[in-house]
Amino acid sequence: MLPRQSLNRFLQVSQRRSFVNAVAVPPKASGFCMQKSSNTNRNVAYLQLFQLGILNHVAIATPNLEKATAFYRDILNGECSEQIPLPEHGVTTVFVNLGNTKIELLHPLGDKSPIAGFLAKNKEGGMHHVCIEVDNVYTAMADVKAKGVRVLDKEPKIGAHGKPVVFLHPKDCGGVLVELEQR
Amino acid sequence: MLPRQSLNRFLQVSQRRSFVNAVAVPPKASGFCMQKSSNTNRNVAYLQLFQLGILNHVAIATPNLEKATAFYRDILNGECSEQIPLPEHGVTTVFVNLGNTKIELLHPLGDKSPIAGFLAKNKEGGMHHVCIEVDNVYTAMADVKAKGVRVLDKEPKIGAHGKPVVFLHPKDCGGVLVELEQR
Repeated sequence: MLPRQSLNRFLQVSQRRSFVNAVAVPPKASGFCMQKSSNTNRNVAYLQLFQLGILNHVAIATPNLEKATAFYRDILNGECSEQIPLPEHGVTTVFVNLGNTKIELLHPLGDKSPIAGFLAKNKEGGMHHVCIEVDNVYTAMADVKAKGVRVLDKEPKIGAHGKPVVFLHPKDCGGVLVELEQR
Repeated sequence: MLPRQSLNRFLQVSQRRSFVNAVAVPPKASGFCMQKSSNTNRNVAYLQLFQLGILNHVAIATPNLEKATAFYRDILNGECSEQIPLPEHGVTTVFVNLGNTKIELLHPLGDKSPIAGFLAKNKEGGMHHVCIEVDNVYTAMADVKAKGVRVLDKEPKIGAHGKPVVFLHPKDCGGVLVELEQR
């Protein structure tokens, strides 16, 4: 099979699925669904203690929120929210609705903003993290820790959407800061 | 209105829309739909020459494709494709299906890979670009150029999905490399 055919076949299958691996066993409240992996490109089946969900958002840190908003709104014709101050998270946010997911523009708010260090290194701004939903963030946190991934908080915290979240260490995630959010 | 209420209201509205600004005027083949902006957070209505669509993918460059794939597949329980060599694009790709969109893991292939420079600066890998769909990439290219955004190619090229794409200069996009792909 040619690479292009492989790709198209994968994407066609992907588009029919709204939640990864949710076909055989719907998620339980406990998060322990003890489901065998259905991936085809590995030989060892094992138990999955949590289910990965959709991309909730891509976060982009910016030193100039008005300018970044204007780029997505006035140049790309995107649908942008108003500026939403989230002092408990140390950011002001603008959401860009892309239909299937969101871009979250983040600008520092207050003296202890979690994105201040990133903007000191990336003065023009840039992609800060990806946020992926999981069916049970507590189970996911315990499971990824058991697999050797450092979790940046001892317990899940309430994130910007009012749901529990944890952040995973970029050095254990291929250089990418990954946020897992309770769906 | 409290910030949280504003956010929730925006997200509720967002979830009902599958394509940004596509309600009033469906896109025409020419791409020139001459639609007034429907955004509420600006005072000046103007004509939109193209429509922004969904997030097609987030691209993550990695120096170790097996390790990056193992992270999304074995640690996060994601659904990953096989490795797909795309020599005409200078990368080998693995797609991670997130249901609503994809992560594309990119690894250099050949001597002139477009991600070699990025990995020289980001040795552990990291987020490389976002790809957003548009209804007409030719119109979009002309329009964003007219608004002062540098486009990295003189003409759209055929991208990894077999559709025309253009890349926009990160310095004109808040530090983010943005790919626009014909939907």
